[in-house]
Amino acid sequence: MAEHYATPQLKLFSLSSNTEIAEKIATAAGLKLGKVSSRQFSDGEIMINIEETVRGDDIYIIQSTSYPVNDNLWELLIMVDACKRASANTVTVVMPYFGYSRQDRVAASREPITAKLVANMLVKAGVDRVVTLDLHAVQVQGFFDIPVDNLFTIPLFAEYYNKLGLRGEDVVVVSPKNSGIKRARSLAEYLDSPIAIIDYAQDDSHREEGYIIGEVEGKKAILIDDILNTGKTFAEAAKILERGGATEIYAVASHGLFAGGAADILDTAPLKEIIVTDSVRTKERVPYNLKYLSAAELMGDALVRIHHREPLSPLFAYSAEDED
Amino acid sequence: MAEHYATPQLKLFSLSSNTEIAEKIATAAGLKLGKVSSRQFSDGEIMINIEETVRGDDIYIIQSTSYPVNDNLWELLIMVDACKRASANTVTVVMPYFGYSRQDRVAASREPITAKLVANMLVKAGVDRVVTLDLHAVQVQGFFDIPVDNLFTIPLFAEYYNKLGLRGEDVVVVSPKNSGIKRARSLAEYLDSPIAIIDYAQDDSHREEGYIIGEVEGKKAILIDDILNTGKTFAEAAKILERGGATEIYAVASHGLFAGGAADILDTAPLKEIIVTDSVRTKERVPYNLKYLSAAELMGDALVRIHHREPLSPLFAYSAEDED
Amino acid sequence: MAEHYATPQLKLFSLSSNTEIAEKIATAAGLKLGKVSSRQFSDGEIMINIEETVRGDDIYIIQSTSYPVNDNLWELLIMVDACKRASANTVTVVMPYFGYSRQDRVAASREPITAKLVANMLVKAGVDRVVTLDLHAVQVQGFFDIPVDNLFTIPLFAEYYNKLGLRGEDVVVVSPKNSGIKRARSLAEYLDSPIAIIDYAQDDSHREEGYIIGEVEGKKAILIDDILNTGKTFAEAAKILERGGATEIYAVASHGLFAGGAADILDTAPLKEIIVTDSVRTKERVPYNLKYLSAAELMGDALVRIHHREPLSPLFAYSAEDED
Amino acid sequence: MAEHYATPQLKLFSLSSNTEIAEKIATAAGLKLGKVSSRQFSDGEIMINIEETVRGDDIYIIQSTSYPVNDNLWELLIMVDACKRASANTVTVVMPYFGYSRQDRVAASREPITAKLVANMLVKAGVDRVVTLDLHAVQVQGFFDIPVDNLFTIPLFAEYYNKLGLRGEDVVVVSPKNSGIKRARSLAEYLDSPIAIIDYAQDDSHREEGYIIGEVEGKKAILIDDILNTGKTFAEAAKILERGGATEIYAVASHGLFAGGAADILDTAPLKEIIVTDSVRTKERVPYNLKYLSAAELMGDALVRIHHREPLSPLFAYSAEDED
Amino acid sequence: MAEHYATPQLKLFSLSSNTEIAEKIATAAGLKLGKVSSRQFSDGEIMINIEETVRGDDIYIIQSTSYPVNDNLWELLIMVDACKRASANTVTVVMPYFGYSRQDRVAASREPITAKLVANMLVKAGVDRVVTLDLHAVQVQGFFDIPVDNLFTIPLFAEYYNKLGLRGEDVVVVSPKNSGIKRARSLAEYLDSPIAIIDYAQDDSHREEGYIIGEVEGKKAILIDDILNTGKTFAEAAKILERGGATEIYAVASHGLFAGGAADILDTAPLKEIIVTDSVRTKERVPYNLKYLSAAELMGDALVRIHHREPLSPLFAYSAEDED
Amino acid sequence: MAEHYATPQLKLFSLSSNTEIAEKIATAAGLKLGKVSSRQFSDGEIMINIEETVRGDDIYIIQSTSYPVNDNLWELLIMVDACKRASANTVTVVMPYFGYSRQDRVAASREPITAKLVANMLVKAGVDRVVTLDLHAVQVQGFFDIPVDNLFTIPLFAEYYNKLGLRGEDVVVVSPKNSGIKRARSLAEYLDSPIAIIDYAQDDSHREEGYIIGEVEGKKAILIDDILNTGKTFAEAAKILERGGATEIYAVASHGLFAGGAADILDTAPLKEIIVTDSVRTKERVPYNLKYLSAAELMGDALVRIHHREPLSPLFAYSAEDED
Repeated sequence: MAEHYATPQLKLFSLSSNTEIAEKIATAAGLKLGKVSSRQFSDGEIMINIEETVRGDDIYIIQSTSYPVNDNLWELLIMVDACKRASANTVTVVMPYFGYSRQDRVAASREPITAKLVANMLVKAGVDRVVTLDLHAVQVQGFFDIPVDNLFTIPLFAEYYNKLGLRGEDVVVVSPKNSGIKRARSLAEYLDSPIAIIDYAQDDSHREEGYIIGEVEGKKAILIDDILNTGKTFAEAAKILERGGATEIYAVASHGLFAGGAADILDTAPLKEIIVTDSVRTKERVPYNLKYLSAAELMGDALVRIHHREPLSPLFAYSAEDED
Repeated sequence: MAEHYATPQLKLFSLSSNTEIAEKIATAAGLKLGKVSSRQFSDGEIMINIEETVRGDDIYIIQSTSYPVNDNLWELLIMVDACKRASANTVTVVMPYFGYSRQDRVAASREPITAKLVANMLVKAGVDRVVTLDLHAVQVQGFFDIPVDNLFTIPLFAEYYNKLGLRGEDVVVVSPKNSGIKRARSLAEYLDSPIAIIDYAQDDSHREEGYIIGEVEGKKAILIDDILNTGKTFAEAAKILERGGATEIYAVASHGLFAGGAADILDTAPLKEIIVTDSVRTKERVPYNLKYLSAAELMGDALVRIHHREPLSPLFAYSAEDED
Repeated sequence: MAEHYATPQLKLFSLSSNTEIAEKIATAAGLKLGKVSSRQFSDGEIMINIEETVRGDDIYIIQSTSYPVNDNLWELLIMVDACKRASANTVTVVMPYFGYSRQDRVAASREPITAKLVANMLVKAGVDRVVTLDLHAVQVQGFFDIPVDNLFTIPLFAEYYNKLGLRGEDVVVVSPKNSGIKRARSLAEYLDSPIAIIDYAQDDSHREEGYIIGEVEGKKAILIDDILNTGKTFAEAAKILERGGATEIYAVASHGLFAGGAADILDTAPLKEIIVTDSVRTKERVPYNLKYLSAAELMGDALVRIHHREPLSPLFAYSAEDED
Repeated sequence: MAEHYATPQLKLFSLSSNTEIAEKIATAAGLKLGKVSSRQFSDGEIMINIEETVRGDDIYIIQSTSYPVNDNLWELLIMVDACKRASANTVTVVMPYFGYSRQDRVAASREPITAKLVANMLVKAGVDRVVTLDLHAVQVQGFFDIPVDNLFTIPLFAEYYNKLGLRGEDVVVVSPKNSGIKRARSLAEYLDSPIAIIDYAQDDSHREEGYIIGEVEGKKAILIDDILNTGKTFAEAAKILERGGATEIYAVASHGLFAGGAADILDTAPLKEIIVTDSVRTKERVPYNLKYLSAAELMGDALVRIHHREPLSPLFAYSAEDED
Repeated sequence: MAEHYATPQLKLFSLSSNTEIAEKIATAAGLKLGKVSSRQFSDGEIMINIEETVRGDDIYIIQSTSYPVNDNLWELLIMVDACKRASANTVTVVMPYFGYSRQDRVAASREPITAKLVANMLVKAGVDRVVTLDLHAVQVQGFFDIPVDNLFTIPLFAEYYNKLGLRGEDVVVVSPKNSGIKRARSLAEYLDSPIAIIDYAQDDSHREEGYIIGEVEGKKAILIDDILNTGKTFAEAAKILERGGATEIYAVASHGLFAGGAADILDTAPLKEIIVTDSVRTKERVPYNLKYLSAAELMGDALVRIHHREPLSPLFAYSAEDED
Repeated sequence: MAEHYATPQLKLFSLSSNTEIAEKIATAAGLKLGKVSSRQFSDGEIMINIEETVRGDDIYIIQSTSYPVNDNLWELLIMVDACKRASANTVTVVMPYFGYSRQDRVAASREPITAKLVANMLVKAGVDRVVTLDLHAVQVQGFFDIPVDNLFTIPLFAEYYNKLGLRGEDVVVVSPKNSGIKRARSLAEYLDSPIAIIDYAQDDSHREEGYIIGEVEGKKAILIDDILNTGKTFAEAAKILERGGATEIYAVASHGLFAGGAADILDTAPLKEIIVTDSVRTKERVPYNLKYLSAAELMGDALVRIHHREPLSPLFAYSAEDED
């Protein structure tokens, strides 16, 4: 037998959720997307056919588990199963948006921890490694016992605002709810600005009682959150900031879901500009003043480093600030 | 401490897929359905709250994983997770219809085995036992290492046709495709009738070449299959049987999905009556000549027997005939 | 053979870390502590002998994994191993203090997630359930796939301060660092008081730059944290509050470690009173103005409910406010 | 330390069951069989010594688990254990015949699923991949979560009969029992011939009632099955075909066990020729008209492709037809 | 639904290896053996049918994995699989003789550890507990993570020899090889006698060089070993003792295999009497001077205690002396 | 993307227990130790930071789990966790001394098997391979299902004594307790010397009754054991040998713990010289006549061979003699 032992190839596949970022990640990594067909039958079942060999290769599957999250998750699990049975060497899932990440604890009696369930399902299906972008809670990394490379978006945002000159004492970075203060603190340090918090006297469902902790009067405010879903949190916070004397109000989030009606709500809020990454592709209408900052180059660079067994730490430069 | 040690209670919960059969199963078992709320948020994520204690109890969850299969599966997995974290003693899932069961083997290179994946996901989420109804392939039981009680529908159908007088040499039980011959054989034995098969010269996608193996001329034919999905298989087979001289044609299936347009196709086929169980609740229009035979009593009886540690074998009387 | 089938007995054992709270928990539960000997040999190895039968019983092991945390963890793991091999029916570990809980995420490249490692070790050793008291991060529940009952201390503290009349607008509940705001928010709601935060411009290692976000001037301030370790966080925060015009300053934490020198630091801080639970037994000197509130009754009540298959939710009354 | 990092070598070992096919597979793959001694002691225990290093190598072990199946399975499991402990990089088991494969479902109450048990045992012992030849039921692939490459024998048989001119409308491919119709269908497509089935009115134990579904009169019939065990199925079917007017009757099976007395039964049946592969080496007398078609080249080719990380799909050309 | 919740029943089944001891154990436990049929087909495959319900029951399976060890092991594994799938509550295997126990370490490069493999296979098949009798090495208990109750035979032997008056300084207990000294030491303490060892200058395969360490001249010698297989070890040791001046020589072993020719060898050795338990049923001829001491009462008593959740420690009275 | 695929690098790290042997092993292997910082906080918790990339590399971690064994074990487990999460390709732990190895069986009712627990914890944390030095019981290899390379020290000792001329019939190798005879037997064969045993009439706790089995009068005696802990076993045995007429007494052990006061005890015993390897670094005072023989070269050679996929068997030359 000829002494021919092929080294594993990196093969990148995109599933259905967000083919746009997948194309950009592939370009950034200098790769082409592999051929895979994914159909959904009339009874809702998904059938996957991988149309090129993956035997012995290192497979990277790009899938944002945003809406419709359950379909996207099953498409991902089925693809992982197909790769493992087809003798892939390793399977890495690249999840620009990690659905169900907010269900990360038992908040009331008899609640599930669905983020952990998702982690367990991925691992059981055969995933060897996960690459994520700004996880809702960094503790979710600990829901896995496989390596999780969680990439940070704050440096992207900091670079953007610095270019706009939004920095220093005239600016205040504001967390729109008391649980997000760590992200505000992190961005504030890049901008050399103070922080403030919007707190609600009772709980998140009684938003009319929100008030500001900290100083915003006369300052330009940047609201920051990880997930922009219905737009209510940002819209309410913007109104409170306006009443509190903020001169200009910006909003930035890592993941823009824009669930039903978010554009309507945000279009009427006193927000000068809204920034999100392209982690989620939505079919909903988006606000008129929305701007996308692509995370594709960051993710493509990460994939190449992982495959080349090089450290990712250079990608985290300036981003060591983290939760608690 | 008082010497008080409660024995585990049987608690039955229904998820969203098929609350009708769940109500009937509960009635048959002499139980009330437990309180659980399941909401789907605007981003598609499902949130479950179990609204009564399950601590130390034996929980039975009824869910047919029919359309929308991926939502229904995640709702089931999340409920299982919630039950386990809330200290349920055991969790049994009762699946009148087991979605993805046809993806039970690698038919072409690099295909997944999604039925096994579903089994693995259920077990990893914490399921202790599964109760199913007429699995597509009995080998799927072997995809689990936990007990699987697969209940049979053929006796229900046999009883029905016997009452109608559809039995004996004047009747022929017909498998509408060559893979379903075992079900035809089993029903035929209850009816003391011969069998026949519709075969297709190439494969299932070229149905125009179908022909009959066996004798149907002058007989009443009963077509039998496990899953009635688009209606094409039955409609085509009925036409072939009509051309072959069958005098009356009936159709029976365990699970009626009636995916988009099935009613239209079946309404124009030469079928005198169509029978399915109530394992699947569909929102699609169903054929004018459809009749439901409820499997609820069978399933309720099984749950009581399982909880009472009594054998299920009496439920299988007359149904030992199975796949080779 | 006589038809004699004993139901499992609840047996409670205490290991070495905190026999005082164990005695109180046993009393609260109406039980005696079981007999177990634990020796540490001259080479540091721990040898456990369980001196009464545990065959078929439900075993509860009380151990706070505080200093010396590694010895206490191994003592716990070895005890669990002994119970499983001696045919215990179930093993529940009751951890008033859960060591390593702050290492719950990868804060810098190539860091471990030791809290998850501890969870994995416990489960692999054979633990069936965990009972904890005010976990550092609620996400740690998700590090387990077995039931975790995390009891809350905030109601204990709220009841205490309410009795003292420390409530309402004259009081401000202060998080001494930006990551603890949820605990402050939760206590504040019991007291109908506002909240404030001590923030640090750079990071926690440069404390001289701390400043207050929110209003404290003229108010009585209650600093709240989960773990009181070296005392530096509270002492520094108290000074900042004093400079900020707070009239009286209190401090409360769930777990009092008082690692080397904490008493010296706290004795000189402008703190009127310090409250901790008895979750940790320390051999260090404690501050002169320290008061212990016992969590033993809460924990004993929980154990009885778990064994009786009764819901724990009544114990969580008024404590639904939790980390986002 | 010198920068010397050897790539894994493919090493092929044969155990005791079928050294003849192992030698041929090795030759086809261009390899020598590795040195291993396997002894069975007077108390029946098997002792394995691998007599060359396997450290870091990719090990392929050839073993047909035919009679004595239990000895052959343990020899295989023990060899796998020895390889893993001796630091083999991967272990692939090559099973030309997979014993216990017919016990793939619960046919009657309280039956085991021994084929799944075998799969579980192999995986637990440390097997990384399985290569099989014409599994009894393709669903057995799903009993594993590791890659299973199931090679097909039908193309070998089709090529042989095509060379003999046994093809077209004058030939009928016959399944000797109603469960084997898919294999008949697959061979028929290669030969452009129709199919027929031997059905039994009650069950397989009352064979005297067998009858033909389909047309055989005046045709040359090829009986096809996967496992030829006692010969009774083929012998009975041949008599029925003869009575039904078939002019010549051939029989082909993938695996020839020829258990006690099979040769006597087959020698008196109206069979012109019997074909099996060399997957099983039997010590029993074989029928006078038996011919072996070797599967060794197919299997050797597969091993080289697997080791070279090349797709196996070219080996499946013309064989996509599979069980439903 | 009636409030009827049956407690698990103890059901005892015997497999094929040693039905005699199984009957005696059942009698000792006051139970009847359950109905199970086990057939071996002409191709060597074993098929098990459990002929009464085991749903929810605590099943005890008695099987000595002596010759033919591989068949007996598979019969046991298949029975366990059947019990688990049939919803047994727990499965305990009772192995009077544990085959492959001597392969408990890697003695030479690339050897398996087959005793561990057996343990792994049993656990993976679904065993919940193991009951053994005088394991070859007590460390084998650690090969399991489930409870293993290892019963001791030395008290049986001690009682027997004490009754014969074989005790005190006139007796010497002799280990026939240097690895068995712990058993000799243990028996010697019951008899208040000294010990001696037969050592071999090179290794066990060059027995002609054996010599005595210790004093035997003028004493009655009792040779003790755990497994009596070919008889060579005892026969050779007896000759050495005779040459060394022992006046009478007895031999005792826990497990009597008497593999091919053992009786011939032992009948010519200077042994006055040979004692073994009935743990193994052999079809070989046994020595003329063999006497069986039954271990059935000991084992039956243990099973009752396990089922009644009572400690086994009373059964170990006087037998705490153990390996190292 | 450039076609750049780095092969895994061998990286060697030392933890805190025994940096001296780690340095020597690194030198022997021609490697530098990697950079890792390990701190222990005031509350006893250990924090590890790996200060260079390990992504894709083969990591070898050197740690003797001697006193303080629990700290050293947790440091090791945490380091393994950090390596796995940081995407190490494989993790091998090199344990010159394996703590808790004597707790390898259940000696009395309800005892743990802590050596197995340690094995389970290591594997669960993510260890892929273990390298040990003279395990207390070779069966401990079977506590793992990953490869364990257990290196032998006897050849080192044999070479040393041979150089001293301590060999032949004038020398007797003595096991100081009846459980260590295999090590004595093994060394004796290298030296062509007889063996003897120190036996204790009751058990190890009543040492005053010790006596010699075998001939020592007029001979030079070498006492051999695996672990030298408190020194009592050697000191007592030396006195017995002196009384028995041995002319010179030497002692050798693989692992020298010298727990509190061992030096005092040994300094007064009639021992001419004591030999141990450098597997353990102790802070205790050591005997005046102690000599260390380094095992570093042996271990370094083994690591290089493992990384180069070369067999270790050459390192075991002359050491096949092992426990029965």
